[in-house]
Amino acid sequence: VLGLGNVGPLAGKPVMEGKALLFKRFADIDAFDIEVQARDAGHLIDVVAAIAPGFGGINLEDIAAPVCFEVEETLQAMLDIPVFHDDQHGTAVIVAAALQNALELQGKELGRIKVAIVGAGAAGIAIARMLRALGVADIFLSDLHGVLHSGRRDLTQWHKPFAVAPQDWDLAAMLRGADVVIGVSVRGAIPEAALPMLAPKPVIFALANPDPEIDPAVARRLRPDAIIATGRSDMPNQVNNVLGFPFLFRGALDCRARQINQPMLLAAVDMLARLAREPVPDAVQAAYGLTATQGLAFGPEYIIPKPLDPRLRQRVSGAVTVAARESGVARR
Amino acid sequence: VLGLGNVGPLAGKPVMEGKALLFKRFADIDAFDIEVQARDAGHLIDVVAAIAPGFGGINLEDIAAPVCFEVEETLQAMLDIPVFHDDQHGTAVIVAAALQNALELQGKELGRIKVAIVGAGAAGIAIARMLRALGVADIFLSDLHGVLHSGRRDLTQWHKPFAVAPQDWDLAAMLRGADVVIGVSVRGAIPEAALPMLAPKPVIFALANPDPEIDPAVARRLRPDAIIATGRSDMPNQVNNVLGFPFLFRGALDCRARQINQPMLLAAVDMLARLAREPVPDAVQAAYGLTATQGLAFGPEYIIPKPLDPRLRQRVSGAVTVAARESGVARR
Repeated sequence: VLGLGNVGPLAGKPVMEGKALLFKRFADIDAFDIEVQARDAGHLIDVVAAIAPGFGGINLEDIAAPVCFEVEETLQAMLDIPVFHDDQHGTAVIVAAALQNALELQGKELGRIKVAIVGAGAAGIAIARMLRALGVADIFLSDLHGVLHSGRRDLTQWHKPFAVAPQDWDLAAMLRGADVVIGVSVRGAIPEAALPMLAPKPVIFALANPDPEIDPAVARRLRPDAIIATGRSDMPNQVNNVLGFPFLFRGALDCRARQINQPMLLAAVDMLARLAREPVPDAVQAAYGLTATQGLAFGPEYIIPKPLDPRLRQRVSGAVTVAARESGVARR
Repeated sequence: VLGLGNVGPLAGKPVMEGKALLFKRFADIDAFDIEVQARDAGHLIDVVAAIAPGFGGINLEDIAAPVCFEVEETLQAMLDIPVFHDDQHGTAVIVAAALQNALELQGKELGRIKVAIVGAGAAGIAIARMLRALGVADIFLSDLHGVLHSGRRDLTQWHKPFAVAPQDWDLAAMLRGADVVIGVSVRGAIPEAALPMLAPKPVIFALANPDPEIDPAVARRLRPDAIIATGRSDMPNQVNNVLGFPFLFRGALDCRARQINQPMLLAAVDMLARLAREPVPDAVQAAYGLTATQGLAFGPEYIIPKPLDPRLRQRVSGAVTVAARESGVARR
């Protein structure tokens, strides 16, 4: 359970029920939460595969890395319906969309930036993979044991492709000169002392909830030139997975896609980024108590659409469906 | 799948969805159908146990005998929520209630009758167990291979307690002199030639759907002294499981019962039988296009309540809850 650790299947039920409600509310998808008491990855895979026949898609939740990678990959290979681990790809999609817009505002290009990801769990690895697919060359990650490099003996097959840092790097070295810092860890994981060492006009995503890896007010004071995003709904630029998973599944189910593949994820990234650059409808401004003149407009404090934006469903789902058809995984 | 055999998990989905709807409509229970692709009984048990934590109760469906017995017993021993195989106990409860009333009308007593059950699957065995619990001494069963007797080498542990017929009995011998014939088999399984050999004032339940084991019109002509019940909604005395499972679960969930045990089943039997002997409310008569003067009243053509009887929910569920508390399986 996010933020609580391995506390048993029943403890996950409230969040899972809430997520099912979001599926329904945002994309009219009838989702049902099933909490699995699994002995290990193989058992979880076996159980999910056995109950899969009656479902149109499977959204995995609350599975820690590295088990989540094995479970998702194995199940997707076994089943002909989408198997989607939102903690990975949902987060990666929203981060990538927000990052594209932030970089545009900062005048930077994906191919020429240094990215430091603090946290190498499900979200960290998925973000790294997504950014690499988008053309980012310099990506470094750290976890509780330090920066990922080739000298580390505790890394899984999913971590190794990103163990590219020099062996003598510590967290400060990883953050020094970084254009982008992405925290998918816990409060305090991004040290205040590192902020002055970031590149000019940095992008700082501190996504731990409810307490970001660094206090956003402190980050703003230390780096007034930064674009900052968090996971919090009471701050600008909320990286909220509800911008992704309902519409990814809606788009997949609408064409009975066999999976949610990389082209579909990239289509969602692109559409989310584009929507944020378009004028914000009055209905969205009103939903957040704002007006068009004093409200949301593309800029450092609005790099990603708001969850209550009614354009999301048609635009993002539609883009996902098109990508599914073009990539050959749609059945209708 | 009832009537279709082992045709794969997805083929069971329409009926399962319908059953979920009945749970909701009749007892306001939110049921969700899960179709399991299981390799064997052990696998099915493992899968159901793994997904059980988020559920308040488990209704098993479409599992053939003898696997159904092992699956239900093992799961109920593992889990602290009700595990209920409706094909067994739901059917047995309705049959027992209807039979009690039919016997009263025919002037016979449970302890002094000969019962012949044609069909020794999930329903047949469960009915035999229920009737034995109610004090019926002479119970015989037959299956495709003949009458169950101690010489049979193909019987499971669940069949053996009822393999009590003489070894030379055939179906005709089992039916000869029977006060009660219960068909839980297929069309034609009760031969017309046997009907004249039944005891005077017999009770004939031919429950195969949509085609009873014997044509009810033929049975009526051959035995005008019989009380006849079927599984059909367009004939009198429909033995319909919807009279049982919604209220058994409602009663169990209302007190967070750990299981649906024998006292709870017997409480449902008793209440269903009692309700049929009470005057039928106008609302029920109206629901079936009848009036009190020309409509349903306790007698040979009304031995069991009708499914749309609004008294069922409170009375049957309430009786089940009381029995759960008295038998020590209720948690509140």
